[in-house]
Amino acid sequence: MEEEFKVTPWEVEGIIDYNKLIEQFGTSPLTDDLLERTARLTKSELPIFFRRKFFFSHRDYDKVLDDYEQGKGFFLYTGRGPSGPMHIGHIIPFFATKWLQEKFDVNLYIQITDDEKFLFKENLTFEDTKYWAYQNILDIIAVGFDPDKTFIFQNSEFTKIYEMAIPIAKKINFSMAKAVFGFTEQSKIGMIFFPAIQAAPTFFEKKRCLIPAAIDQDPYWRLQRDFAESLGYYKTAALHSKFFPPLTGLEGKMSASKPETAIYLTDNPEEAGKKIWKFALTGGQPTLKEQREKGGNPEKCVVFKWLEIFFEPDDKKLMERYYACKNGELLCGECKRYLIQRVQEFLKEHQEKRKKAEKLVEKFKYTGKLAQEQWNKAIPDPLKK
Amino acid sequence: MEEEFKVTPWEVEGIIDYNKLIEQFGTSPLTDDLLERTARLTKSELPIFFRRKFFFSHRDYDKVLDDYEQGKGFFLYTGRGPSGPMHIGHIIPFFATKWLQEKFDVNLYIQITDDEKFLFKENLTFEDTKYWAYQNILDIIAVGFDPDKTFIFQNSEFTKIYEMAIPIAKKINFSMAKAVFGFTEQSKIGMIFFPAIQAAPTFFEKKRCLIPAAIDQDPYWRLQRDFAESLGYYKTAALHSKFFPPLTGLEGKMSASKPETAIYLTDNPEEAGKKIWKFALTGGQPTLKEQREKGGNPEKCVVFKWLEIFFEPDDKKLMERYYACKNGELLCGECKRYLIQRVQEFLKEHQEKRKKAEKLVEKFKYTGKLAQEQWNKAIPDPLKK
Repeated sequence: MEEEFKVTPWEVEGIIDYNKLIEQFGTSPLTDDLLERTARLTKSELPIFFRRKFFFSHRDYDKVLDDYEQGKGFFLYTGRGPSGPMHIGHIIPFFATKWLQEKFDVNLYIQITDDEKFLFKENLTFEDTKYWAYQNILDIIAVGFDPDKTFIFQNSEFTKIYEMAIPIAKKINFSMAKAVFGFTEQSKIGMIFFPAIQAAPTFFEKKRCLIPAAIDQDPYWRLQRDFAESLGYYKTAALHSKFFPPLTGLEGKMSASKPETAIYLTDNPEEAGKKIWKFALTGGQPTLKEQREKGGNPEKCVVFKWLEIFFEPDDKKLMERYYACKNGELLCGECKRYLIQRVQEFLKEHQEKRKKAEKLVEKFKYTGKLAQEQWNKAIPDPLKK
Repeated sequence: MEEEFKVTPWEVEGIIDYNKLIEQFGTSPLTDDLLERTARLTKSELPIFFRRKFFFSHRDYDKVLDDYEQGKGFFLYTGRGPSGPMHIGHIIPFFATKWLQEKFDVNLYIQITDDEKFLFKENLTFEDTKYWAYQNILDIIAVGFDPDKTFIFQNSEFTKIYEMAIPIAKKINFSMAKAVFGFTEQSKIGMIFFPAIQAAPTFFEKKRCLIPAAIDQDPYWRLQRDFAESLGYYKTAALHSKFFPPLTGLEGKMSASKPETAIYLTDNPEEAGKKIWKFALTGGQPTLKEQREKGGNPEKCVVFKWLEIFFEPDDKKLMERYYACKNGELLCGECKRYLIQRVQEFLKEHQEKRKKAEKLVEKFKYTGKLAQEQWNKAIPDPLKK
């Protein structure tokens, strides 16, 4: 019974010991030193994702900061597999990414893998994943990226990615891909090729690439780090986040396949509130009396965790809440109501921005400065505007 | 010792028994009936490739003719792997393809697989195969296709092919691809994906696709025929040719890796003549006396075979030569000199057309009618001319 949790790109189970995960994955802890350096270089207060160590681990983030300091710069890369609607857990790393883009003033590439999701999900059609690609892009744009420094590209459309994947696909053989991705004889040949498509954006610029993502995605980049230098590029750097817990408990991660555990970005705020009221697990005592006497357990409380990760940006208020709970001064219902209010505010604001995003899709995908630069490489001269 | 020859997509060895090959591959013989129907439908005399049964086998060619007769039409697809200069053996199927395009007045798609050759050839760089792509395209254009009904596309450039390959790549698993292509654990993931890229053009139009190619390429299309209908398309049809023999003997096929066995389309005509004089194997007797008495063996003569396949279009002259040889009236030197003269004429003419082709590349790849139609599907509207 050594392992009580499990983290692979396909599964996240149990209460995760994040320090152990750093050891298991061979990554480095995101130290206070690195965070202070980040604050100093960006001349900014750190956002809660960093202050509260929701991002807790990294690879080569120190080198990214070195490159930045030396004027070499870097760029950001992240992505989304469009197999359904996005929930709150999906969008949080995008907020962290937005902060990094804004403060370091760097380019950001967002890969929408409609090819991957169609290939890996038996029951999804290509039309389905293209539909979700559009829906998810609206949510991503709503986060507020710089439209001239952000290129959102869908693999089925920005197929230049295929050419870029070819030299990578000559570096990876079936047995290497199998070891990382768990392929079998029954795996479809499109799935087997996909790791090359996923790695390609790390070579979009001849600068260090920084990928902010949940730690379960780390294995995908290990192959890239093996061959990147042999192709004349940098090993990609990464910032790893913890998982956003499902409503129903602190184990595993929020999953789109269990609707009661998730709040979707497109949920009606009213309904979202009801879902939280009904399903959110708290660290409260069985009775009001015990709660008043013994106090609650914010460490075991999903409501507190959600406030900590995203919904209570005010450190002082969060601490007050923590001690009030511990001291039995706060009842779970009060906390739930507070979270519901914050989530509803967030959803309303997000959904307004999402509506406005419809008019920005063209800019992020095709006509913004960075998008145009990339398409410019993809379209042969005689066919250009 | 049942098998004295071997034909796979990678190897052609021995003196090939083409009737046996039809059985082994499970294809159908290209019957006189089908050829007569072809002549009738095209209101044309058949070209030597058909008259002399250099094309000898097919799959669903009868259905292609049915579709044509019923006004449904069909389209042609062929390709070239640009790993080096093209020789005479490479270009002959293109002449047959040109005849088919001209007489049936149909669209033709020519896939230049610079991706494949880079992936499969350990020592070639992507730059190499892109260089050879351009060189080979000049030779192909020199054949004289209709620039508004022919789309020559290079996979590294017309990457829309990637999107089209995705639904195919969801139909083929590793074990199926392995069975046909001989992949192993060491095969690169780009190689493993390539069958989907190769099959994609068979779905460029919702009509039957006809592929004219040497019979060793047939296995590549068997997978396509397995899943085509499940994707709502036609099983591809094919016309299979025999192999163009190397200068040095009737076994196997002309190979670019043995320069003395091949005449390249860019060979200096003078040098090409010397090569034929020095290396061409004839069916002559050891001495002049024996040749006069016993006669030669045109069946065993590479010189005669080259005349038969391509360089002596006049049936009457070919037959006269055959009997003159059989009767000892003709010496090998005379035949060689005649072939050299024909090859030199061909090379001079080809090389002139090849020079003119430089100005046509843009039309075949981008701006011709068919090319524009295809690129039109590949470029998002906001980026169009």
